Amino acid sequence: MRLGLDIGGTKTDAVAVDDDGTIVDRVRLATGFGPEAVIRTAIDGVTRIAEITGRPVEAFESVGIGIPGQVDVVTGNVSHAVNLGFDELDVGRRLTAALGLDVKVENDVKAAALGAYHLMTRRSRAGRESAAPGGPAGFVARGAAEAAAPGGHSMAYLNLGTGLAAGLVIDGALWRGARGTAGEIGHIPVDPNGVLCACGQRGCLETVASGSAIARQWVTDDPIPARSLLAAADAGDESALAIRTLLVDNVAAAVRVLVLTVDVEIVMIGGGLSNLGEWLLDEVRRVLTSWAVESPFLASLGLEGRVQLVPAGFPAAAVGAALVGAPANRPGSSGNVEGPGTIDHGERIATWQK
Amino acid sequence: MRLGLDIGGTKTDAVAVDDDGTIVDRVRLATGFGPEAVIRTAIDGVTRIAEITGRPVEAFESVGIGIPGQVDVVTGNVSHAVNLGFDELDVGRRLTAALGLDVKVENDVKAAALGAYHLMTRRSRAGRESAAPGGPAGFVARGAAEAAAPGGHSMAYLNLGTGLAAGLVIDGALWRGARGTAGEIGHIPVDPNGVLCACGQRGCLETVASGSAIARQWVTDDPIPARSLLAAADAGDESALAIRTLLVDNVAAAVRVLVLTVDVEIVMIGGGLSNLGEWLLDEVRRVLTSWAVESPFLASLGLEGRVQLVPAGFPAAAVGAALVGAPANRPGSSGNVEGPGTIDHGERIATWQK
Repeated sequence: MRLGLDIGGTKTDAVAVDDDGTIVDRVRLATGFGPEAVIRTAIDGVTRIAEITGRPVEAFESVGIGIPGQVDVVTGNVSHAVNLGFDELDVGRRLTAALGLDVKVENDVKAAALGAYHLMTRRSRAGRESAAPGGPAGFVARGAAEAAAPGGHSMAYLNLGTGLAAGLVIDGALWRGARGTAGEIGHIPVDPNGVLCACGQRGCLETVASGSAIARQWVTDDPIPARSLLAAADAGDESALAIRTLLVDNVAAAVRVLVLTVDVEIVMIGGGLSNLGEWLLDEVRRVLTSWAVESPFLASLGLEGRVQLVPAGFPAAAVGAALVGAPANRPGSSGNVEGPGTIDHGERIATWQK
Repeated sequence: MRLGLDIGGTKTDAVAVDDDGTIVDRVRLATGFGPEAVIRTAIDGVTRIAEITGRPVEAFESVGIGIPGQVDVVTGNVSHAVNLGFDELDVGRRLTAALGLDVKVENDVKAAALGAYHLMTRRSRAGRESAAPGGPAGFVARGAAEAAAPGGHSMAYLNLGTGLAAGLVIDGALWRGARGTAGEIGHIPVDPNGVLCACGQRGCLETVASGSAIARQWVTDDPIPARSLLAAADAGDESALAIRTLLVDNVAAAVRVLVLTVDVEIVMIGGGLSNLGEWLLDEVRRVLTSWAVESPFLASLGLEGRVQLVPAGFPAAAVGAALVGAPANRPGSSGNVEGPGTIDHGERIATWQK
């Protein structure tokens, strides 16, 4: 059994996953603000999951933390976690000392990539085992094809949160990059006449396809600006329509960057904006399909068939964090046999607000 | 001893490399046009290298071919090799039958990535072994740092030829992608108001930073349009200056895409335009440095220190092709001890024009 936490700006998800990767227990806490409160939240999350599963913390094979900011995976130090209220914190050392076992720390987007990849390979295996020849098309069939292809077992997790960033799984393993910054595609400029980005460049993907992009362009009292934006666009507001078009076009552009550069088999969209759900997925696929009509080259890549959404409610970063401690970070490479329908995310949820 | 060929549109380079990866012999042939002539050229190249080294073809541990177009590395089939005069050719099967040994086939840009990576790791090893603390800075020091970093051993080869494309080495191995199209960054649009690309999209990187981009924008009788362009720009021609600026800015943009997306430690520039040499490298670094002044985020990535040029005359694709048959495609992972200065590319060149 492994234990994973996803420490977000407002909420912390904690999960226990068994050797098959099935979520056995799950709890959600409010995240405290500032270094001490964040450490306290993490300890509470771990303790609470241990209580629910009825085993001591030290009985878990691994404990992993997904957290925003720049993470040194060797030392467990976290920097620039602005939303959590600190600039520098030795999360790994503090938690290892407090809990009495080795705690791994990973950037939350990278952890989510691992969690989403784990889900994808489980589905793919389940599909292969259940599907007769000529069986279900779509995700499962692609998963099977991908497993057979040389250079398969690749995926990008595209996080559409306040910012825009990706996590990469290449050849079945998380690829952090030479300096830990792989997937920072939010700061690839796509329009020389675009607005100035917080990063100092102009026209970055993040300035048009992210939560902060919507908040900047669509001023509203609605606590969920995207919801207000879409409602206004549906009502025919010209400005809302233009912002919505920019958003969808540039989520599609992010998918294009990921596939053209890395040629990942699947791009899985997650993060706050993925709560727009099937509507967002359909729109992004529509844009990718329209591009393929104009470009035989893009058509040959089949982009629209390579985009997926992380299922609503699946705690990708917490599951990925639990797997950070697993051998070779290759959660999908085990030979465990699972039938379809064993993906148990949320059935035994215990919600605990601090 | 391994044998590699790089079949280009006009010339074919053939090399024999020893177990240390040193180029032992080398020959250059004119490439024939059309399927039969290309197969003939390949057989001639292999036969000629075997003659020079004084050993039969079957005594080579592996024979590999780098070739433009879309390559199925399993079957050895090559498609869309327009510059070679065919649309479809079973290069692997034909050569295996003709030569009596298994011939591997790889896309030329991907082969060059492997060859360039091989050169980089040799340099890095040589540097580590010779350098005292505080020894030579630059490439060697970075190579040593990279070897120590988690997620190191990564490189992108950026080919600036008629088109623009990259080859990726990730975690010490060539990454072809899920469907063999990794590195197709030439078709990432960077300007929504740019010109129409042959691929059907608008404002692709390739439309501004490639040999074809120069040829389209700068009409001249000079057989090397880039040379004529730079001369005119140096003389103050406004139009030439604008085209040159677009070129350099977008080679830098290609470097940015590669590092932001994949976080490769080094981007090595090769291909026809890399003959612009140190001038090109200096200009690209100047642009990257100017961006870093505006963007603390880019500054933190140290892009200008991560760009290199493939040394003039180094036959990266032929060396890479020779290594395609090597175990795990990890030419740099052997423990062979080499001193600096053992990189022997070209000393025993025998040039043979058909």
